[in-house]
Amino acid sequence: MRFLSAFLFGNALTNAADRFLPPWKFVGTVWPQPQSMVVKEDYQILDANIQFILTPDSPQCDIIPDVFQRYQALIRSHFKSASSSKKLKFSSSPAGVIDTIEVKIVNCENLPSQNMNESYTLQVGSPSSEKVELTAMAEWGVIHGLETLTQMIHDIDYRPSINSTMITDWPRFPFRGFLIDTSRHYLPVSVIKAQITAMSWNKYNVLHWHIVDLESFPYQSQVLPELSFLGAYTPLHVYTINEIKDIIEFARLRGVRVVPEFDTPGHTDSWGPGAGPKFLTPCYTNGKPDGTRGPINPIYQENYNLMRKLFTEVNQVFSDSYLHLGGDEVPFGCWKSNPDITDYMTKHNLTTYAQIEQVWVQGMVDIAHDLKKNYVVWEEVFVNGVKISNETVVEVWKGKTGTWKDTMSAVTKSGHKAILASPWYLNYISYGVDWEGYYNIEPTDFNGTNAQYELVMGGSAAMWGEYVDGTNILPRIWPRASAVAERLWSDKSVNSSAAARWRLNEWRCKMLARGLPAEPELHNPNIDPNYGYCPTPFDPFNNAHFLF
Amino acid sequence: MRFLSAFLFGNALTNAADRFLPPWKFVGTVWPQPQSMVVKEDYQILDANIQFILTPDSPQCDIIPDVFQRYQALIRSHFKSASSSKKLKFSSSPAGVIDTIEVKIVNCENLPSQNMNESYTLQVGSPSSEKVELTAMAEWGVIHGLETLTQMIHDIDYRPSINSTMITDWPRFPFRGFLIDTSRHYLPVSVIKAQITAMSWNKYNVLHWHIVDLESFPYQSQVLPELSFLGAYTPLHVYTINEIKDIIEFARLRGVRVVPEFDTPGHTDSWGPGAGPKFLTPCYTNGKPDGTRGPINPIYQENYNLMRKLFTEVNQVFSDSYLHLGGDEVPFGCWKSNPDITDYMTKHNLTTYAQIEQVWVQGMVDIAHDLKKNYVVWEEVFVNGVKISNETVVEVWKGKTGTWKDTMSAVTKSGHKAILASPWYLNYISYGVDWEGYYNIEPTDFNGTNAQYELVMGGSAAMWGEYVDGTNILPRIWPRASAVAERLWSDKSVNSSAAARWRLNEWRCKMLARGLPAEPELHNPNIDPNYGYCPTPFDPFNNAHFLF
Repeated sequence: MRFLSAFLFGNALTNAADRFLPPWKFVGTVWPQPQSMVVKEDYQILDANIQFILTPDSPQCDIIPDVFQRYQALIRSHFKSASSSKKLKFSSSPAGVIDTIEVKIVNCENLPSQNMNESYTLQVGSPSSEKVELTAMAEWGVIHGLETLTQMIHDIDYRPSINSTMITDWPRFPFRGFLIDTSRHYLPVSVIKAQITAMSWNKYNVLHWHIVDLESFPYQSQVLPELSFLGAYTPLHVYTINEIKDIIEFARLRGVRVVPEFDTPGHTDSWGPGAGPKFLTPCYTNGKPDGTRGPINPIYQENYNLMRKLFTEVNQVFSDSYLHLGGDEVPFGCWKSNPDITDYMTKHNLTTYAQIEQVWVQGMVDIAHDLKKNYVVWEEVFVNGVKISNETVVEVWKGKTGTWKDTMSAVTKSGHKAILASPWYLNYISYGVDWEGYYNIEPTDFNGTNAQYELVMGGSAAMWGEYVDGTNILPRIWPRASAVAERLWSDKSVNSSAAARWRLNEWRCKMLARGLPAEPELHNPNIDPNYGYCPTPFDPFNNAHFLF
Repeated sequence: MRFLSAFLFGNALTNAADRFLPPWKFVGTVWPQPQSMVVKEDYQILDANIQFILTPDSPQCDIIPDVFQRYQALIRSHFKSASSSKKLKFSSSPAGVIDTIEVKIVNCENLPSQNMNESYTLQVGSPSSEKVELTAMAEWGVIHGLETLTQMIHDIDYRPSINSTMITDWPRFPFRGFLIDTSRHYLPVSVIKAQITAMSWNKYNVLHWHIVDLESFPYQSQVLPELSFLGAYTPLHVYTINEIKDIIEFARLRGVRVVPEFDTPGHTDSWGPGAGPKFLTPCYTNGKPDGTRGPINPIYQENYNLMRKLFTEVNQVFSDSYLHLGGDEVPFGCWKSNPDITDYMTKHNLTTYAQIEQVWVQGMVDIAHDLKKNYVVWEEVFVNGVKISNETVVEVWKGKTGTWKDTMSAVTKSGHKAILASPWYLNYISYGVDWEGYYNIEPTDFNGTNAQYELVMGGSAAMWGEYVDGTNILPRIWPRASAVAERLWSDKSVNSSAAARWRLNEWRCKMLARGLPAEPELHNPNIDPNYGYCPTPFDPFNNAHFLF
C-alpha cells in the first residue's frame, strides 16, 4: 500500500525509473481539496449497480432525481474504463462492496443563492462498509459530496474502488464566480452548458454572464426586441428568453447561480441602434457633433425608462437575487465635449464627471432597489467616488500585478463587500505554465482588519471574449480555472502549488475522461517528463461521451 | 455591383453604419492569394448537381476519384447553407449556370515530392459559361484548383455563384511545411488527419512529423518493438505502422508529403529504456557515473547498427524521399564528462565536441545515403561546423527576433538549401493578434545573392507539443498557420497584412463552416468591431459535419 497512500496524501513518486509505468498514479485525490479529509488504507470496491437512496427523514428537493441520475452515470462510466485499463495489483483485499449511497438532506433551499448552504459530510467505509453516507445541510451539499465521492474512485485490481474516508467539507468563500462574455464572441448554448457543468465539477457556484457589451447585444428581449434585432451580430447570434431560462435551470440543477451583467453607462455601443437616438451621448469635436457616440446619455428620463423596462424583464428571466450593473471604464471625454451635458451639470450644480456618472448609477441602483435585486458594480464606481449604498458589492478587477490589494483594502475599509477578480483574468494567455500564478493568490492578502477580511465574499475568474468562441474557449479555460476554484473553496492553508500539481494533473485527466477538452497545461520536463498525458488520449472528433 | 467588386478586390467597407448588417461581405476571396487572378463582374450560378469530368486526353491519376468526391461534397455543402442565409440582392442576372467542372491533367506524378508540379489554371465563365475549365500539370494542381474554385463560391440571391474569373497559379516556394510534435503530447490519428486536411486547404504541402523526442517514443517499430514498448507513455499512446501508412496515404490524396523526423543524437531520453544500456551516454560527476544519461553514445558500433535497422524500416514506411535527421540542441556536457568519450577522442585525434557530433551525424548521413534518402538537419549541425555534404538541407529555427537572417545568409552562402522555421513557432502564444507578425516575414530578407535566394526551398511553421494535444491543438494552429501559408505560396508582393485581414477573416469563416475549429484570432475593435464572428456560430458539440 505504499504507492496508494503516498499518492492519496500527495507525495507522488518522482523516481525517474517510474516514468514509463502506466499512469496508475492517478488515484482518488479530490479537487478542490476538501476542508477535512481523512483517508484510510482499507478500501471498498463498488457495485456496478450502485443505488442512490434518500433517507426517509430527508425532504424531497426537486433537483435530487437529476443529481442522482448524473452521478450514477458518472460512476458507471468508471466500469467501462476500468475493464480495459491496466493497473498494478495490490495484495490486500477489499473490506466490502459498496452497493448503496445513502443521502440525508436537512433542508431544501430550491434556488442557489448568496446564502446557499453547500456543506456536507461524507463517510466511506464506516459505520458500514456496504454503504456510503452523505449528509448535506441542503441539496447543494449533495452535489458537492457526490462530486467528491466520484473523484475518489480509483481502480484496484481492475475494479473501481474507494478507500475508507471521512470528509467534512464546506466552501471558504460563498462567492466563487466565473465570467463569460457573449458580446465579443457569441457562445453556443451547448458551450455555456458545458462550462456550467465543468464549473459545478470544480465547485464554482456563480456564472457571471457578461451578456452584452459594445460589440454586440445578443440578449433577445421581448419588451425591447429592437436591441438585439439591431445590436446582435446576426439573428443566429442571440439568446432567446427561453434559451436563457433553460440555461438558468441547467445551472440550478448543478448548484450554480447565474448573475447577468448589463454593463452601463459605458461599453454600450451595440445598444445604440436599437435604443434610439437619445440613448448614447453624441460626442462633439470643435463644437459640432462628430458622428461618434459615447456612453449612455444620463440627462434624459427616457433612458432611465428604457432601463427600467429592460431590467423589469431581466428580473423575471434571471431568478438570482443579484444583478451586475457594470460601471467599468466610463470614458468622460465624450460627456465633456457635449454642450447639453455641460448645461445639465450647470443647472444641477454638478462639478465633476464622476457626479454625472453617479446620476446614472443612482438611477440604476434605484431600479434594482425597486425590483428587490441586490447588485454588484465594477470597482470604478467606488473608486471614482460615486456615492453608493453599503449593500453595493464591489468587484475589483484592476491591478493584477498587485495593486488590487490597495483597492480591496479601500473597498472593505469603507464597509462594502468585495469580490476579487484582478489576478484571475484567464483570457490573458502566455506561453508556458501559468496556473501556479493563479493558485498562489491569496484574496485576503491586503492590509485590513478581521472585519474587513470578512467582507471578502470571494472571487471571480474571467474569460473575456475578445479571442475566444466555441472553437477554443473550453480548453482555454480548463484546467487553468481549476486553480482558482481550489483557492476559493479550500482552506487558506492549502496553498502549495508544488503539492497541488499532482492532484491537478490527475483532475485534468478525470475531466478529460468525462469529455471536457481540458488542455495540457502542466508540461514541465524538469519536474516530470510524463506530465500532461492521461490514460486515454482525447479525441475531439470522437467525444460523444461528454457527460453533461 | 459596388459592394461585390469592392470586396473581391480587397477594399472592404469600414463604414460604421454597416456593422449590423449580416456578414454578406464574406464573398469569394481566395486564401492563399493566387499568383494571377482576374475577376470580372458577371457571374454564373452553380448547379446543385455539378459534375466533375476529366478530359479524354488526361491520364487517370489514381487520387483523382477521391479528390473529385471530396470537392463535390464541399461544393454541395454550399447549397445547404445558402438556403438559410440572408444575403443582399443584386440586380444583375447570372450569365449562366455552371453544371460541369472539366479537368485536364498533363501528367500523373502519383507521389507528392520536392519536385511536385502544383501549378494550375482555372477559367470560370469562359470560353463557356456552363463549364469551369481547370488545367493542371499534375494531379496536385487539380487539388489546388478545386480548392481555389470552392473558396470562390459566394451566394447571390440565395444561390451559390461564382464570378467569371481567370486564374494562373503556382507556389512561390516548393517546401511549405508544418511541424507537429507527437512526443511531448500524443495526438490522435483523427487530429493528425484533420491537420493534414486543413493544411491541404491552405496549400501547405509538407507535414514535418517530429514523431519522437525525449518525452516519449510513440513510433511502434516492428523491428525494434521495445523502443515504443518502453518509450511510449502507454500502449494507447503509439502509432502502429498501419496507422502511419494510413496517414501517409490520407496525406497523399491531399497533395501533402509526410517527412518524419527521428531526432538524434540529443532529445533521445525516451529511446534509452528500449535501445539498451549502451545507447545513451552515461554522464559523470566527480569522476563517477551519476545515474543520468546524455545524448546517444557515438563511440559504439551497436548504436549505428540500431539506427540502420530502424531507418531501414522507416524508409519502407515513409514513402517520401526526405528524412529529417534532427541534430538540434546536442548538449556537450555529458560527453565531456564521460572518460570513454575522452579516450575515444584521444585515439581518433578529435579535439572538439563538434567533431564527436560529426562522427554521429556522418553515421546517420551514411545510412540515409545507403537508403537513397535525402535529408534535412536542424541548423546546429551546420553552425557547429559538422562537415555535411552539399545536398544536406538545413532548417533554420533559431533567432526568431531576426538573427535568423544571418543564419539563412551563412547557410545559403555555403551552398546549402535552406528551410526557414525561426519566425513561425506558433506554439509561442501571446495575448492578442499575432498572425500579422507571421505574415510580415519575408524569407529572403537576408544579405545574399540571387543564387543564395534560390537556395531557399521554403519554410515551415511549427506547433511544438509541450502545451498542446487533441484538446486544443487545432484551434491553436488555425487560422494563425494560414498567415504562413500565404507567405509561402503567394507572390512576394502580396505582403500587406492590412489588405490580407479581410480575406483571412473570410477564410477563417469558411474553414469554420467546413467543421475546422479555427479560433477567432482577429478581434480588433479599433478596426472593426464585427471582426471575428462568422455567419453560423461554431458548436464543438455538434460538429459531425467536419469535411475531411
